[in-house]
Amino acid sequence: MTIDRITPIDGGITAPAGFRAAGVACGIKANGKLDLSLLASERAASAAGVFTTNLAQAAPVVLSREHLATSSGTGCGVIINSGCANACTGADGRDHARRMADCTAAALGCEPTEVLVASTGVIGVKLDIAKVERGVKDAASRLSPAGGADAARAIMTTDPFPKESSVEVSSGGRTFRVGGMAKGSGMIEPLMATMIGVVSTDAAVEPALLARALKAAADETFNAITVDGECSTNDCVFVLANGASGVELSERDWPVLVAGLKAACEPLAIGIVRGGEGATKLITVRVTGATSSAEARRAARAIANSPLVKTAVHGGDPNWGRLIAVAGRSGSAFVLDRAVVRIGSVTLFSDGTPYDDRAPEAEAYLKGTDITLEVDLGTGGRGESQMWTCDLSAEYVRINAEYRT
Amino acid sequence: MTIDRITPIDGGITAPAGFRAAGVACGIKANGKLDLSLLASERAASAAGVFTTNLAQAAPVVLSREHLATSSGTGCGVIINSGCANACTGADGRDHARRMADCTAAALGCEPTEVLVASTGVIGVKLDIAKVERGVKDAASRLSPAGGADAARAIMTTDPFPKESSVEVSSGGRTFRVGGMAKGSGMIEPLMATMIGVVSTDAAVEPALLARALKAAADETFNAITVDGECSTNDCVFVLANGASGVELSERDWPVLVAGLKAACEPLAIGIVRGGEGATKLITVRVTGATSSAEARRAARAIANSPLVKTAVHGGDPNWGRLIAVAGRSGSAFVLDRAVVRIGSVTLFSDGTPYDDRAPEAEAYLKGTDITLEVDLGTGGRGESQMWTCDLSAEYVRINAEYRT
Repeated sequence: MTIDRITPIDGGITAPAGFRAAGVACGIKANGKLDLSLLASERAASAAGVFTTNLAQAAPVVLSREHLATSSGTGCGVIINSGCANACTGADGRDHARRMADCTAAALGCEPTEVLVASTGVIGVKLDIAKVERGVKDAASRLSPAGGADAARAIMTTDPFPKESSVEVSSGGRTFRVGGMAKGSGMIEPLMATMIGVVSTDAAVEPALLARALKAAADETFNAITVDGECSTNDCVFVLANGASGVELSERDWPVLVAGLKAACEPLAIGIVRGGEGATKLITVRVTGATSSAEARRAARAIANSPLVKTAVHGGDPNWGRLIAVAGRSGSAFVLDRAVVRIGSVTLFSDGTPYDDRAPEAEAYLKGTDITLEVDLGTGGRGESQMWTCDLSAEYVRINAEYRT
Repeated sequence: MTIDRITPIDGGITAPAGFRAAGVACGIKANGKLDLSLLASERAASAAGVFTTNLAQAAPVVLSREHLATSSGTGCGVIINSGCANACTGADGRDHARRMADCTAAALGCEPTEVLVASTGVIGVKLDIAKVERGVKDAASRLSPAGGADAARAIMTTDPFPKESSVEVSSGGRTFRVGGMAKGSGMIEPLMATMIGVVSTDAAVEPALLARALKAAADETFNAITVDGECSTNDCVFVLANGASGVELSERDWPVLVAGLKAACEPLAIGIVRGGEGATKLITVRVTGATSSAEARRAARAIANSPLVKTAVHGGDPNWGRLIAVAGRSGSAFVLDRAVVRIGSVTLFSDGTPYDDRAPEAEAYLKGTDITLEVDLGTGGRGESQMWTCDLSAEYVRINAEYRT
């Protein structure tokens, strides 16, 4: 199926038909800000998730995995609290995550296993579950097709801005919508357990296909970003597909489905990087000329996490030698004499020759806030990959060195 | 063979018998500081090296590898310049490295393949080889058994202090000496290509055994440190064993040989970390309870390179949740409910339970400058590993964000 058009639209997580959302303040955050986010589908939806690979997994992550397995990928709602990660909280934590699902299911009139649960905030602190239970009732009473914006605010911890996106996808005369919200890595209060994304669509997609498509889309968006190379105990991305548009997507619609999910996820992922701790610049790292896309990704990840590269961009220093050094140590195949380094459109190294006379041009480019760094690994292969990261500033250190209490 | 005693002695790289050294200013550094370091053995010595695993290797690294192979592990001298890394310099760079070996061999009266060459300094800039050739003659005329200190100064780039060590090893009535010098990662001038270590001993050790012992010692010292997780184009450690003590070490003396080399290398490695960019604290990371020592090392490396851990220590924040989160994402087996986290001697998490009431005690401990962080991965295995790192400060960012010209 061809993709005719993907158009940005308003509405965020509630832009697709048949979804309602709400964000309320239930008292977890001492400052009275929104801290409980509820998304509900008007009908049972296909559900899927991708989760942190961290072996220290928070209770809600463990529970949501179980629910997706038990319900065979059916979901009615997603409940997320901010301000407390419910991680490293032992048996009480597991009980609290279960009670979040139970009371949400009661409010929505579905099975607890059809509820996905996430938490974000401080690690090692227990939830005040009574507050959450009252909050869920409150949120359920406020569910609205216009509630996406509140829902996106209620999952923020110290993110500098909420992250929402929504698109309409047209393909062969059919139209469906994909919406999303995410929260990122504002760790001014350290120990925040970090990245959460929620995606909704009014296309009908059977659960196994939806799970594969979410993974494919996440690999190119949420899994292609880094702020500081850390991976939290609570990271997860959920998707609900409720079919309210009447459009059914099957295996043959794979490119349309993945493109639609990616179109909603990419701005969220980039938003997380732009809102990264102490970030002043968005850096797109492109690696080409690798023996495979996995090799390209490995080199791109090494560059995107390199403190020397990130500080150089922060300082506006066209320091191509650092890109060479990181590519060479990344573990991916690399041929120095055929490698190429570009900052923006300025080639600073190729065929074994440095072009330092072009440094002023690259330096001028680096004064911008959207920076592209490109390395051809010189193997002659066609593998390539793209990642997004941010610069490393003294502000990052200040934020993360502050005492957490 | 038992090790009776390992005693620190003076003299650095020239503490072992039969070694002479010099450090001169040949004009590579514009400020007139020492920039050329020569070590000579009075007799042909066994030689070995360990080199950067970076695939972008500087010309002197490639040449020194070749020389060790061609000479079957025989060396008479080591010539090192600072101020210019001779990396990413193409065919000219290869020629310059060869000429450094040639003129050193002429001055010492040995074969060029018996000379090991290293360079450290800015990447992508060519050596002024005429200056180096004049400098080698000058250095050869100044060789002295008391020249270790000058030699150690002449390999510094922006290291805050020179790094020398030397020990006397007694074993079964036999006595030999091991000396060393190293330079680290002062990257105030970015693009410095970083770590170089040189070790000398007056024991006699056949080359293959010496190479294995150097690797074993380096794995526990130079390869167990990190400042920022970067690996340069020029890293190398050389050892010369000239037998001038009359003590011959063979396979059965393995523990004595490795202990002697480690005793000289460990203070150099720790010195590099203490002198790390922007460092204010030395952090020893100990990982226990892993399924193997390789798994323990992987987790220790992840912790030692974690910006969140390093900023927490910098800020004096007993932030045990970050240690859990990094251990969990490290790729090594990890069992949350049996993991233990200690800061100094304060246990902050064990049996799935946080002990936040002990945070003030850990906070007081973190005011010191020598910090130990310990994580038991909870697998019940006996694998353990130790690494050294430093804290991450705003000064690190300032140093590395400055424009290099």
